[in-house]
Amino acid sequence: MTTQLLGTSFIGYSRSSGTEICGHGIQPGTCTVLEPAYMAATPDEVEKALSLAAAAFPAYSQLPGKTRAVFLRAIADGIEGVVEDIVERGQLETALPEPRLRGETGRTVCQLRMFAKQIEEGSWVDARIDRAQPDRKPLPKADHRAMLCPLGPVAVFCASNFPLAYSVAGGDTASALAAGCPVVVVAHSSHPGVAEIVANAVIAAAQANGMPEGVFSVLYGGGRKVGQAVVKHPVIQAVGFTGSRAGGTALMATANARPQPIPVYAEMSSVNPVVILPSALVRGEEALAEAFFGSLTLGVGQFCTNPGLVFLPVNTGEVFLAKLKSLIEAGSPSMMLNAGICKAFADATSSFATAAGVATLARSTTEAGSGQGAPMAFIVSVADFLKSEVLQGEMFGPATLIVRGSLEEIEAAIPHLEGQLTASIHSTVEELAAHPGLVPALQNRSGRLIFNGFPTGVEVCDSIVHGGPFPATSDGRSTSVGTMAIFRFTRPVTWQSFPDALLPAELQDANPLGIKRMES
Amino acid sequence: MTTQLLGTSFIGYSRSSGTEICGHGIQPGTCTVLEPAYMAATPDEVEKALSLAAAAFPAYSQLPGKTRAVFLRAIADGIEGVVEDIVERGQLETALPEPRLRGETGRTVCQLRMFAKQIEEGSWVDARIDRAQPDRKPLPKADHRAMLCPLGPVAVFCASNFPLAYSVAGGDTASALAAGCPVVVVAHSSHPGVAEIVANAVIAAAQANGMPEGVFSVLYGGGRKVGQAVVKHPVIQAVGFTGSRAGGTALMATANARPQPIPVYAEMSSVNPVVILPSALVRGEEALAEAFFGSLTLGVGQFCTNPGLVFLPVNTGEVFLAKLKSLIEAGSPSMMLNAGICKAFADATSSFATAAGVATLARSTTEAGSGQGAPMAFIVSVADFLKSEVLQGEMFGPATLIVRGSLEEIEAAIPHLEGQLTASIHSTVEELAAHPGLVPALQNRSGRLIFNGFPTGVEVCDSIVHGGPFPATSDGRSTSVGTMAIFRFTRPVTWQSFPDALLPAELQDANPLGIKRMES
Repeated sequence: MTTQLLGTSFIGYSRSSGTEICGHGIQPGTCTVLEPAYMAATPDEVEKALSLAAAAFPAYSQLPGKTRAVFLRAIADGIEGVVEDIVERGQLETALPEPRLRGETGRTVCQLRMFAKQIEEGSWVDARIDRAQPDRKPLPKADHRAMLCPLGPVAVFCASNFPLAYSVAGGDTASALAAGCPVVVVAHSSHPGVAEIVANAVIAAAQANGMPEGVFSVLYGGGRKVGQAVVKHPVIQAVGFTGSRAGGTALMATANARPQPIPVYAEMSSVNPVVILPSALVRGEEALAEAFFGSLTLGVGQFCTNPGLVFLPVNTGEVFLAKLKSLIEAGSPSMMLNAGICKAFADATSSFATAAGVATLARSTTEAGSGQGAPMAFIVSVADFLKSEVLQGEMFGPATLIVRGSLEEIEAAIPHLEGQLTASIHSTVEELAAHPGLVPALQNRSGRLIFNGFPTGVEVCDSIVHGGPFPATSDGRSTSVGTMAIFRFTRPVTWQSFPDALLPAELQDANPLGIKRMES
Repeated sequence: MTTQLLGTSFIGYSRSSGTEICGHGIQPGTCTVLEPAYMAATPDEVEKALSLAAAAFPAYSQLPGKTRAVFLRAIADGIEGVVEDIVERGQLETALPEPRLRGETGRTVCQLRMFAKQIEEGSWVDARIDRAQPDRKPLPKADHRAMLCPLGPVAVFCASNFPLAYSVAGGDTASALAAGCPVVVVAHSSHPGVAEIVANAVIAAAQANGMPEGVFSVLYGGGRKVGQAVVKHPVIQAVGFTGSRAGGTALMATANARPQPIPVYAEMSSVNPVVILPSALVRGEEALAEAFFGSLTLGVGQFCTNPGLVFLPVNTGEVFLAKLKSLIEAGSPSMMLNAGICKAFADATSSFATAAGVATLARSTTEAGSGQGAPMAFIVSVADFLKSEVLQGEMFGPATLIVRGSLEEIEAAIPHLEGQLTASIHSTVEELAAHPGLVPALQNRSGRLIFNGFPTGVEVCDSIVHGGPFPATSDGRSTSVGTMAIFRFTRPVTWQSFPDALLPAELQDANPLGIKRMES
């Protein structure tokens, strides 16, 4: 490994001198303790990181998009330069296989370059110009111009299940930096070493490109202690989080209790319902079961988009179920991300297995080893499903619940679902024509509708929504993936009757940036 | 008056049978009780209005924009048809002068037509299309298409100070209906008769255009009782409110405490700082004082954009102050909107007058009669201003606080201001060049920046932001005025791999609506 790990926080361009150990990387399964020890940032250092972020905001937020883009591209380049270190350390800390770590690093780099491209081009600010009409009757109209502006320093919490794409330099950080917001990252205890490797790359890019100190800091010390202090701090103007429902709702409560409440973008909890209509089974029940099993077990089921709930009409799909059963029974247990997630998965599957009316359809015939999660599926009637609070919850891992009833019962159950990231429908166009309310009902409960497919594998693009009504996310008006994610860290501002010289370039008469604008 | 007032709520297309009197219209000043008595909606009726809204949502939200636009235009036409009733009843209930009531009715009608035009054109949904790339390596790309969709039923609270433009069929209602959301209005106790006249027009337009019952209801019974019940109800998906900070923060707390938290758009509290640099005084101190006095006393100061705070450097502006003093002393007390607002104004001005370091610059030499508010101005040093919590508060009425210090002190004070709807700067371009941080600092504290002007008189257009960081609004990412207001009641949704026939028209391949789209 070329990176020397120090085990200390990044306070702007300095390193922490804290000496209180807050944890080590731990190898899943073996529970081997990895060096170095990680030291919690001291309260003074947390304060300093936030002060630096506040001080950096005026300069950083006023930089041209093209200049911020150079910074984002330099981060991407820097991460590519340490990919071998990431893969080496990542395998130790997370048990994720090498191809996944390489792939996720690639996604992270792509995300940084996607936001760089977005702010280089510049039209994303939604510039609007209403020119003055001095002769308008009965009152003259003043010149009004508006565009989106950055909110201020943003706190980003690293995700356990995305050590790269939703951690130190992941989608939240990239979109906040792109918008013009300094970022204070709270590292996740599951992969502190990967965090340090990536943080080094970000800091190097910031320094090499003359970014103001404080544009980026990374704090160790845990989400509960350091994280709460960061979210409470008046400097912070928004929060990005991917993790558990308990963690996300705790941050929402803290943010709402501030003298000045701030937006929290927490991506928390989703079971991603899949509705299978009879016409989809006609096309091949075994192939459908194989595709579903692939989605269910991808990444040991540790994705927010894991299909944890399937509605399957009664008197259909027996071949689908038989095939799924055989796939699950033959499926191998695999190492999960950390001991906490593994225990939570075991607890959740136990609760499901013992809930009223639930039968176990299948579980892996191979005993799960230490730290492992094994595929399994449960089955219940719509009536029993609707009676249970437990069964609407998430089993974070490779397990799913199959809910059976008449098509009418299934349609009637949809509006009772909690908010979801995704909803999938398997059908023909013709069969859906007989159920015109089904897609709108699924739309009302989710942020992404999928036709004849499964929800894992989130495409990072302009048209993706990775968000949905609570509790899928804390703020269903947002997405944490794709170019629309930048909007989370902005607000519109109007300039009224300003001389051209005092306007941002985006709003000047000559349109020097050549961006798309709404003009009247 | 041609409208017969019944004093009952509108529960979809029925009228309430509640018999508990919750209030009457009261003539400001004389305190004359106006007939009829208004009856609170019963809890069953509140429930029914909300159930109807929920039932109306699927059909209403899927209507083409052009169809919803016909409904909005019919409301506008209907309101124009009862303008004489509005003016007659409005003068009794609110003491607002006839030209203001006619003007505000005109603004309300214009807003409805502005949103109608926006949804007829249709590009506001921000349609995005990422076409499939089946041959992409290493993985094929699926077709993704996204657009903004309505949130669900919206609760709208009428504003005391805008009986038309921010009440029954005001900006919140118009933008929510435009977005595709049914609306449940909570009437304000200050102008129940005007509410009933306007509600009749909305209901008539809904029925004449075949809108689903429940697309619109109006409840009497007060914000605290009926209003809290509405905001707590699971059917409601967002809240629009214009009023006091106490009222707005109470609604925020209720919304956040729901099992499913929902967005609240509360426009609450702003003192709209005005910064006067010496170069602006050179152009004519007396004219500047006259313009400021005009803004301060417009509508008896009862606007959210009233300029309640002026930063004036020491050793300048003595002529400005002398002129302002003479204008205020000669200024007439005028009738305020209701007894509560009048008392709150008296209390606030008393608190300011007796706060440490505050001197009274001027007050009207005419004694204020019952229900009236009189112009006044106070003066304080930057140092004493910053020490006081009271002095950052709002005096809702024709009163202002002039804060004096060195230009350096004034610049240093700006970041300590609470969030504001507006900030005004009076200067030359040249003088601002010597203070490059001043406009960005004001930008960071407000939603609208005004150069050499005053904040009253909000232009309703594409480029207006009537919003700002808390406590100006509960959600500084939004505006309650202008076409961007529609975004408050929407969230993005992705359709992945959907056949064309199952896509909304906005996202279909042929672009049948001819809207602007982002395509790749």
